[in-house]
Amino acid sequence: MPLDSQQVRASITLSAIRRLYRRNARITLYKLIEKTHPAKMAWVFRYLSRHERRDIFKYIQRMDGIGDFLDELDHALIPEIFEDMDASEISDILSSLPAETAVELLESFTDNIADDIRNKMDAKDRDEVDEVLKYEDDSAGRLMSHEFMAFNESLSVKEAISQFQDMGNAAEMPFYIYTIDSKQRMVGVLSLRQLLLHPPETLLKDIMERDFVFVSPETDQEEVAQLVTEYNYLALPVLNSGNVIEGIITVDDVIDVIREEATEDMLKMAGAGEDEDILLKSTLESVKTRFPWLLASWLGGVCALWIIGSYETMLQQTVLLAAFIPVIMGMGGNVGTQTSTIIVRGIATGHVNIVEISSVIMKEVSIGVIMGVIYGLLLGLLTYVQYSQIGAPLMLALTVGLSVLFSMFIACLVASFIPIFLYKLDFDPAISTGPFVTTAIDIIGVLGYFIIAQNLFSTS
Amino acid sequence: MPLDSQQVRASITLSAIRRLYRRNARITLYKLIEKTHPAKMAWVFRYLSRHERRDIFKYIQRMDGIGDFLDELDHALIPEIFEDMDASEISDILSSLPAETAVELLESFTDNIADDIRNKMDAKDRDEVDEVLKYEDDSAGRLMSHEFMAFNESLSVKEAISQFQDMGNAAEMPFYIYTIDSKQRMVGVLSLRQLLLHPPETLLKDIMERDFVFVSPETDQEEVAQLVTEYNYLALPVLNSGNVIEGIITVDDVIDVIREEATEDMLKMAGAGEDEDILLKSTLESVKTRFPWLLASWLGGVCALWIIGSYETMLQQTVLLAAFIPVIMGMGGNVGTQTSTIIVRGIATGHVNIVEISSVIMKEVSIGVIMGVIYGLLLGLLTYVQYSQIGAPLMLALTVGLSVLFSMFIACLVASFIPIFLYKLDFDPAISTGPFVTTAIDIIGVLGYFIIAQNLFSTS
Repeated sequence: MPLDSQQVRASITLSAIRRLYRRNARITLYKLIEKTHPAKMAWVFRYLSRHERRDIFKYIQRMDGIGDFLDELDHALIPEIFEDMDASEISDILSSLPAETAVELLESFTDNIADDIRNKMDAKDRDEVDEVLKYEDDSAGRLMSHEFMAFNESLSVKEAISQFQDMGNAAEMPFYIYTIDSKQRMVGVLSLRQLLLHPPETLLKDIMERDFVFVSPETDQEEVAQLVTEYNYLALPVLNSGNVIEGIITVDDVIDVIREEATEDMLKMAGAGEDEDILLKSTLESVKTRFPWLLASWLGGVCALWIIGSYETMLQQTVLLAAFIPVIMGMGGNVGTQTSTIIVRGIATGHVNIVEISSVIMKEVSIGVIMGVIYGLLLGLLTYVQYSQIGAPLMLALTVGLSVLFSMFIACLVASFIPIFLYKLDFDPAISTGPFVTTAIDIIGVLGYFIIAQNLFSTS
Repeated sequence: MPLDSQQVRASITLSAIRRLYRRNARITLYKLIEKTHPAKMAWVFRYLSRHERRDIFKYIQRMDGIGDFLDELDHALIPEIFEDMDASEISDILSSLPAETAVELLESFTDNIADDIRNKMDAKDRDEVDEVLKYEDDSAGRLMSHEFMAFNESLSVKEAISQFQDMGNAAEMPFYIYTIDSKQRMVGVLSLRQLLLHPPETLLKDIMERDFVFVSPETDQEEVAQLVTEYNYLALPVLNSGNVIEGIITVDDVIDVIREEATEDMLKMAGAGEDEDILLKSTLESVKTRFPWLLASWLGGVCALWIIGSYETMLQQTVLLAAFIPVIMGMGGNVGTQTSTIIVRGIATGHVNIVEISSVIMKEVSIGVIMGVIYGLLLGLLTYVQYSQIGAPLMLALTVGLSVLFSMFIACLVASFIPIFLYKLDFDPAISTGPFVTTAIDIIGVLGYFIIAQNLFSTS
């Protein structure tokens, strides 16, 4: 990643902050931090030492931009900068932030400390936090902001503009104005632009869009992200069952969700849980998260051990057969990972045409067969040349060649079929590409190899 | 993924469209399609048959929303719906779209057909397309829209609002107003909200933000996405070297980039190239893209073949040793995939604290050692019980246990070190987790196993 003008400018800020910090030039440092954009400060924090971070956070703590700063800061650094503060100091900071940001931060602490901090908050702030906590993790309710503009549909454009001016700074990203009826139910939406483009006496209800997309507080954040991506909205209203607006979800939060979901999918595909904060966890917690997935591959390995063990007599005759195990397993495993990744991500992004599934599977299987023929031929040829002193070099070559073909064919079949099958059953296809499929492919590949060897080579 | 209200509503549209299509109720069908949001239509298209799609596209073709529809349509379906149109018909459709959308669509055709379509365009439209094509793929220049509002900084709020009203519908997402000086250079930015909040006589230059973030047409789209994510902007201006605004990049395009980059990273990690359109490619093109990555694992397999082959005498004595190859390789491979995925994604999302790298690597290595001890003990125990009739069951158990420990330790070391090392050298860490690292781990794991066996078991 080459340094560009923006990064160069951030680097200049970084050096300046470091220099002022070393010189202990407090007032100049304070002023510099104050006029630096919170997002740029968050970037600078990545490159500071632990010590510098803790001291410099003391300045930021007192600034207006602290919420934006904490929002943008790498999660890995959150526990660290709060490390030497006590619960009441942390609760003061969290109280000054929007409730949904406070909840996000609370969750980077262990449960005990989080409870402590929560208890130290004012009743009002605590209630707000509890209101957010009431919704499930990863739901729209957790994500929504309570700062939005809702005007009665019977207002005129002129009245709406004047109300807007009265509360102008209260809303986050006030680009949409929601309209409500006398019972507080949402009935329409219009953009700020429309306010400007229509004559002052026009009524909102005559210019508002009545066909709008909304979600409920229980909607999964992944679905919210999907809707915003598809419809290109900058914010979505969250309505309760009575059609009253509970909050809005803005596009900047959706972007974070999209990154988070991509991370979760990658982790699931690698069999490493699905918690994007795994890097923040202690070694032992990480072991606990990652252990079960490895158990699948351990059990698979033990299966392979028994399979190979049962062919001991054949191996005794030609011990060289053992040497081909890695290449046959590896070729199946790697082509299978390619296939399952392409299919799983394709389902997530709409690149897989999920109506014409059989043609998708057929294509993957064809690829497996073509690759299997090429790499099988290559291995067979190499074997024939290399091991010509063996009793039946042609049969050995044929055995390993066919085994590569078989393992690559089976790998593509299993790795394309299982994710699609899981998706059809409403399960998450990402899980399937983890150790389960890999292990299944390993076992079938090894079994196929020994069966082929038994029939072709050992009887020859 | 449970069906929610939005999807239920889209499903109702889908059934209605199908019904009207079957009944050949053209006018009603036309009206229904016309009032359906283009994004919802794109969703409906996923579930139509090839035949239905082609016929129904004939209706959409004549509608205003066609650009938005094609923008949202799954890429997999693009070539299909244009299949039976000739170049001049396609060029008519593309000419009606913004140049950057036209270029995106052009790229889903083969070069020959794309050239044909381009040649059939009017000189003016072709020039616009060529203007976009002038920039490299994945650059800001390719992504930017030319519809934006730039007003002279010396205008008053009142004058700006009146100009805004004159050109209100010309700009895409007109939430920011850019200010320029008399030489057309960008000097500031303000939001539509600020226009509404300030008295009519205020000059733009007195309320505009002078410290703004921008990119150049050559900036990589990944960096654009990073900036928008960090700074929470809804659009970024693209300035040429003379500080003149060439276009703007809006957040909806950035969301597409974020998804695309995540897909690319996943494909790279799986050793399946980096082209998210791989699913649209023919079988042979896919083979060509995926082939080289598999070559790495084939060569690695051949290495393992030679290594194991060189221990033939030892294997001859205890052929059972061969049966442990899969479990030792598998445990190293899977824990390594976990580690590299966590590290690569952590670097991409800022979860890895890239200043304190040694502690990150130390943690991964500790996890490898803990997992290695547990799974090594399990395998050793199983081996000791299962193969007690063997000459030296304890030594065999010790050999396989230690080998699991060694392969898991090496896997975590290699899989955490290499991505960080590549990142420091300004290479893309995602490539490293592909077949190269996996293959390296396989070879070292197998070699370690045979060295341990030679020293512990075979001499015992």
